Amino acid sequence: MLDMKRRTSARSARALLVVASLAFVAQAIAQTDPLPSWNDGPAKRAIVAFVETTTTQDSPHFVQPAERIATFDQDGTLWVEHPMYSQVIYCLDRVPALVKARPELANVEPFKTVLTGDLEAIAKLPMSDLEKILFATLTGMPVDQFNAEAKKWLETAKDRRWKRPYTELVYQPMQEVLQYLRANGYKTYIVTGGGQDFVRVYSQEVYGIPPEQVVGTASGTKYAYDKHCRPFLTKEPKLLLNDNDAGKPEGIHLMIGRRPYAAFGNSTGDQQMLEYTKAGAGPRLTMLVLHDDAKREYAYGPAQGLPDTKVGTFTQALYDEAMKDRWVVVSMQKDWKRIFTFEQ
Amino acid sequence: MLDMKRRTSARSARALLVVASLAFVAQAIAQTDPLPSWNDGPAKRAIVAFVETTTTQDSPHFVQPAERIATFDQDGTLWVEHPMYSQVIYCLDRVPALVKARPELANVEPFKTVLTGDLEAIAKLPMSDLEKILFATLTGMPVDQFNAEAKKWLETAKDRRWKRPYTELVYQPMQEVLQYLRANGYKTYIVTGGGQDFVRVYSQEVYGIPPEQVVGTASGTKYAYDKHCRPFLTKEPKLLLNDNDAGKPEGIHLMIGRRPYAAFGNSTGDQQMLEYTKAGAGPRLTMLVLHDDAKREYAYGPAQGLPDTKVGTFTQALYDEAMKDRWVVVSMQKDWKRIFTFEQ
Repeated sequence: MLDMKRRTSARSARALLVVASLAFVAQAIAQTDPLPSWNDGPAKRAIVAFVETTTTQDSPHFVQPAERIATFDQDGTLWVEHPMYSQVIYCLDRVPALVKARPELANVEPFKTVLTGDLEAIAKLPMSDLEKILFATLTGMPVDQFNAEAKKWLETAKDRRWKRPYTELVYQPMQEVLQYLRANGYKTYIVTGGGQDFVRVYSQEVYGIPPEQVVGTASGTKYAYDKHCRPFLTKEPKLLLNDNDAGKPEGIHLMIGRRPYAAFGNSTGDQQMLEYTKAGAGPRLTMLVLHDDAKREYAYGPAQGLPDTKVGTFTQALYDEAMKDRWVVVSMQKDWKRIFTFEQ
Repeated sequence: MLDMKRRTSARSARALLVVASLAFVAQAIAQTDPLPSWNDGPAKRAIVAFVETTTTQDSPHFVQPAERIATFDQDGTLWVEHPMYSQVIYCLDRVPALVKARPELANVEPFKTVLTGDLEAIAKLPMSDLEKILFATLTGMPVDQFNAEAKKWLETAKDRRWKRPYTELVYQPMQEVLQYLRANGYKTYIVTGGGQDFVRVYSQEVYGIPPEQVVGTASGTKYAYDKHCRPFLTKEPKLLLNDNDAGKPEGIHLMIGRRPYAAFGNSTGDQQMLEYTKAGAGPRLTMLVLHDDAKREYAYGPAQGLPDTKVGTFTQALYDEAMKDRWVVVSMQKDWKRIFTFEQ
C-alpha cells in the first residue's frame, strides 16, 4: 500500500512537472521576440500588428492561410546592393572567360573597357552597354552550365569592404521578418529586378526560399537535344520579363497569380509592387528600407539628400508617396539593432 | 488495496485499449488503398512503386521533400478534352458579348461564322482564326473582370453529353494520384497548354492546386491606374509563353525552376515535358493517358487506329517513344475502375 502510494505520488509529481514544463515552454514561446534585431519603434510594431491581425482566427482581418503571400525585393532590401549589384559584378567577372571563348569581342565595346579593369570607366558605361554585357554573360549557355558557374562564383567571390562572400551580406533583421512571416503561414517570395535564374541558385540556402518562389527578370530558354538525344535547355538572349517597376506586379500576376498581403522594397523599382499590394482589400503591409546608415552599411539617394546613384533610387517623390499612402519607411540606422548575421 | 488494484487494472485495460486502437488505425492506414479507382495492373503498380522508392527514408532513390515536384497536363489528362477544349467553348460563348461591345466585328471573320452557331463550320475554322478568337475573348480586359466572367461561365455552362458543369468532368483516378502524391510530400503542378489565368480560376477548388502552381499558356499584362488612381492589371494580347510542346519544359523552367520527378500527359503536346522529366537522374515517373474507352468516355487518335483530331493527338510515334523510353501508358478502359467522381 505504502509502496503503491509512493508510486502514485511519484507519478503525480512527474505529471505536475510535465504540466509545469509545458506551461513554461508556452510562456517562453509567447515571450520570445520574433524580431530581436529590430529596435522597438513604429516599423517593428507595424510588422507584429500586421501578423497578429491577419493570423488570429477571430480577428476581423483574418487572412486564410492559402492567401498569405509576402513579396520581397532583393537588392537593397534583403542584401547589400551598394556600390554595385552583386549580379553585375558577376557579369563583369565573367567577361574574360567570355572573350577567351569569343576572341572577336576583345576589341568591341563595351567588352574592351571591361577588360581594362578600369572601375571608373566601367561605372560610366551607359545602360545599353550594361545590357549587352548582361545578355552576353547570362545567356547562350545550357541552364545547367549557368547554374554551376554562378554557384562556383558565389562560393569564391568576395565583397571588397567586408571581405566576405556576397551571400553573407544579408540583413539579419530582414531574415527575421522572413522567418516570422513563414512561422505564421505566409509564403515568402523574392520579386527581384535581378536575374531569376541567378537568384534561384542560392535562394534556398541563403533565405530559405525555394527556387519556385523566386520571381525575377527572366530570359527565355530553348529546348533541344544533345548528340546523345538527351534534352536540355539553353538560356536565350530573349527577355521575357523585366521584373522592375510595373514589371513587378506584372511578374507577380504571371508567376504567383495572387495579390500579396505584404511587400518589401527600397527603391522606385519597387513602387508599383507596393502600390499594387496596398490597393488590395483589408490590411496590407508595405515597407521601404531606407539606406541611412553610412557607418554600418551605406547612406545614399535623394531621400537622404544625397546624389542619385545607379542602384536603389529612393527618391523624394517615393518618400512622399510612402508617407501619403501609409507605407512604413524602415530606417536602417534607427530601426535595426544590427545589420548582418555575422555581427554578433 | 482492492480498490487500488481495480483502478490499476482499469487503467491497464484502458492503456491496452489505446494501444490496440492505435495498432488498428496504423494497420487500417497501411491497408487503405490510395488509388481505389485504379484496377491492379502495371500502371497502378508503377505509381505506388515510384512513391514508395522516392519517399522511404532508407531507399537508395529517396528524394528530398523540397525536390518532390510532379507536373500534370490538364486537357485529356485530368479532365475531358473531347470533342473540344472547354476553354475554347468558353471563348466561342464569349463572342456574342464581344460583338455587342464591338459591333464592327459582326461582319468580320471568324466572328461572323461563330455568330451563326453552325458548329460544323466553326469546327472547320483554321488555327489562325481560332487564335484570333482566343486573343479577342481572353485579353483586352482587366484581370479582375476576366476572372469574374470565367468564374460565372464555369458555374453555369454544361457539357452536352453529361449535362454537367465542365469542372465535374474530372477523372477520379487522376484526382487520387494528385492526392496520393501530395500526401507523400509532392508539390503538384498543372502544366497546361490552356490559359494560365483561366485554369487558375478553378484549380484550387477542382484539383486542390493553388493558382501559383498552375503553369499555362500566358499572355502579358499591363499595369495602369484607373481614374481614382487605383492600380490594376489589364490582360494584353501579347503571348509570353505558349505552354505546349517544347514550351512545357521551358515553362517549367520559367515558373518552377526545377525538373519534375513525375509528369503526366496524354498527347504530343506533352512529349517534351515527359522527355525532360525522364532525362533527370534517379527514378522518374512518366505517364500517358490513352483515350481508348469509347463507352465510358471517348476513344480517339492515331494510337487507337482512329483519325487524328484537333485535340489530344496521341500519335503512333508518341506511343513508340513511350515504349522505348519506358513511359507508362494508362489505358482508361483497362486501368480505370471508374472515370468520374459522380459515378458512384
